[in-house]
Amino acid sequence: MSLSEFKWAARVTDIAPFHVMAILEEAKRLQASGRDIIHMEVGEPDFSTAAPIIAAGQEALAKGLTQYTPAAGLPELRQAIAGHYQTAYGIDVDPKRIIVTPGASGALLLLAALLVNPGDQVMMADPTYPCNRNFMRMFEGKPQLIPVGAESDYQLSAAHIEQYWQPNTRAAMLATPSNPTGTLVNKAALKAISEAVAARKGALIVDEIYQGLTYGVDALTALSVNDDAFVINSFSKYFGMTGWRLGWLVAPECAISDLEKLAQNVFLSAPTPSQYAALAAFQPDTIAILESRRAEFAKRRDYLLPALRDLGMSVPVTPEGAFYIYAGIDHLTDDSYQWCLDLLEQEGVAATPGLDFGIEGARKTVRFAYATDLAKLEQAVERIARFIQKAA
Amino acid sequence: MSLSEFKWAARVTDIAPFHVMAILEEAKRLQASGRDIIHMEVGEPDFSTAAPIIAAGQEALAKGLTQYTPAAGLPELRQAIAGHYQTAYGIDVDPKRIIVTPGASGALLLLAALLVNPGDQVMMADPTYPCNRNFMRMFEGKPQLIPVGAESDYQLSAAHIEQYWQPNTRAAMLATPSNPTGTLVNKAALKAISEAVAARKGALIVDEIYQGLTYGVDALTALSVNDDAFVINSFSKYFGMTGWRLGWLVAPECAISDLEKLAQNVFLSAPTPSQYAALAAFQPDTIAILESRRAEFAKRRDYLLPALRDLGMSVPVTPEGAFYIYAGIDHLTDDSYQWCLDLLEQEGVAATPGLDFGIEGARKTVRFAYATDLAKLEQAVERIARFIQKAA
Repeated sequence: MSLSEFKWAARVTDIAPFHVMAILEEAKRLQASGRDIIHMEVGEPDFSTAAPIIAAGQEALAKGLTQYTPAAGLPELRQAIAGHYQTAYGIDVDPKRIIVTPGASGALLLLAALLVNPGDQVMMADPTYPCNRNFMRMFEGKPQLIPVGAESDYQLSAAHIEQYWQPNTRAAMLATPSNPTGTLVNKAALKAISEAVAARKGALIVDEIYQGLTYGVDALTALSVNDDAFVINSFSKYFGMTGWRLGWLVAPECAISDLEKLAQNVFLSAPTPSQYAALAAFQPDTIAILESRRAEFAKRRDYLLPALRDLGMSVPVTPEGAFYIYAGIDHLTDDSYQWCLDLLEQEGVAATPGLDFGIEGARKTVRFAYATDLAKLEQAVERIARFIQKAA
Repeated sequence: MSLSEFKWAARVTDIAPFHVMAILEEAKRLQASGRDIIHMEVGEPDFSTAAPIIAAGQEALAKGLTQYTPAAGLPELRQAIAGHYQTAYGIDVDPKRIIVTPGASGALLLLAALLVNPGDQVMMADPTYPCNRNFMRMFEGKPQLIPVGAESDYQLSAAHIEQYWQPNTRAAMLATPSNPTGTLVNKAALKAISEAVAARKGALIVDEIYQGLTYGVDALTALSVNDDAFVINSFSKYFGMTGWRLGWLVAPECAISDLEKLAQNVFLSAPTPSQYAALAAFQPDTIAILESRRAEFAKRRDYLLPALRDLGMSVPVTPEGAFYIYAGIDHLTDDSYQWCLDLLEQEGVAATPGLDFGIEGARKTVRFAYATDLAKLEQAVERIARFIQKAA
């Protein structure tokens, strides 16, 4: 029996593989052959999960708390997340509006299923996190990529909404802080965008996955200006729980019963041990650990940003969040993928080509993650400098 | 700002809520008011996760193993699953063909994305596990429900494939053991179905989520007759790891790179602590525990099946697997949902109306789960008998 004549669904071809995967594979190959590789390609904090969270997970296992939770998550975790919005942002969010998901991926999945009919467009910035585009395509919608630049902090603006909204545009999607650019949407812009989207009877999706990881600016949530926004969040980044696969979605009340129905179908519930562990994520002792890590990320950014600029790379807007610098290398190449491969082969520094994040300008940009300690970052900058010099 | 004029995507309306959720909610309400409720509606084993698996999870947490794994899963877990196929079924499966997923839900998600174009049909039995239908609708495909009966053990047969296959039928889906009927597809039928599907250049999906939970018959996997089948499995049922959200998919080699690409987009990776815990699932000491639980399930089935038949319920084919009995109650009602509600209100026994599993005959059937201990089952049967008598 053979499937050789079977053609996969069209979406499979339309969804491009991540270039970073080829980089990562080559990095691992080189590492296995004994080379010293500095990883600046990965979107994963180098800190392991904070001890109080681990301890809470172990305690849940000791108690045998391993059965399904309700599809929307443990009531006490939904309550704790609501408490976090109160403590950190001073806003009331009804716990019923919070759905715990298997990673932010689970939240994106629910939203694509809820909002996107075949042919519908979801407006988003180019560059953007590639899964955002792909989730829309997955559900037969279309990512409507709007090239953004320094003038709007590499973010969608109300002006973009006004200029590019089309009859089949159903929603706009922001990410603040943004992956790959690390830039934020400020409160005034959030308000203007919310109004522009509402005037067009669209939905607004705000990815706040890197919330908490901001440097020198006040933390913000879109919920403080727009109660009808769909807000995606994650325990992976600020809370350092990547492998636990846990995130959440805040949605308007009118969407909750349908989102629960979708959740029952697509994932049943988020992992139970992870949910119990996450109950410890908002404790003062955990937050103290996470804040000291944030300070460390800030130091890294403060080192890496001027260092890359000194190498002639273009970073016109200061990245104030996440742990990425999206650097223009137009003076060096118009093939960022090959450039990244060469950098890896010659100097053992792995970075992500812009190509993974968009179309416009993507061939002339590279994303550097600073999820690596300062000493390694300094070494990486030396190596990148040598690589550029050799190529010149 | 308001979303009041925003219409959710059409699929949201097409996906019906599970009736069992309303039953469950009412059961919880009654329980909270002090009533004694016997739960025969849930699809979750009443045993907690076996101690060696819990211990392996705790050990992983103690070691801080909480980062992402590769999208296809921990290499050592893929290897362990391959080893299980060798030990339990005597067949070689290349670990590269095994993708670890967040629950069987994650595997279904990957397959729907891989196989289903808008308008494509996926043939499946009526009755079937409702998420199967809904996953196809989610990706704009159509579940092609084929009413099945006792003559084919409540399963699709090669004759069904031959009779009902249409130009836009892309795949057939089996579940063995089946939820809700507990019936199996035997080796000869699997072979005939595989050939009928292959002759039509279709794909075959086999849900083996309840594999291992069979009573009095030899265990079987579709992989032993069809190397090109897409086989879905789970750590939830036989391995008792529901809340850990872990399953796997075995796929033909030609599909693996595309499935990995989809997995990177839709879930990044399965939960890491769960994957490490599952490494202990195939150890002899764990298997010994699981086998004693299987013996317990067998006892329950051996009690419940004749008891329900004695109440006049129709179960024409002996359920040899899973932990469900799908009982015809045509002599009692043609509104199984109301019947279940009344049974719950009057006697405190919760069961799932057939309506959740199909259309044909669904109003005259009920699914009873025996994921409850024998003493409770005996009590439940007494109560059901009294309920029937009162209604007569």
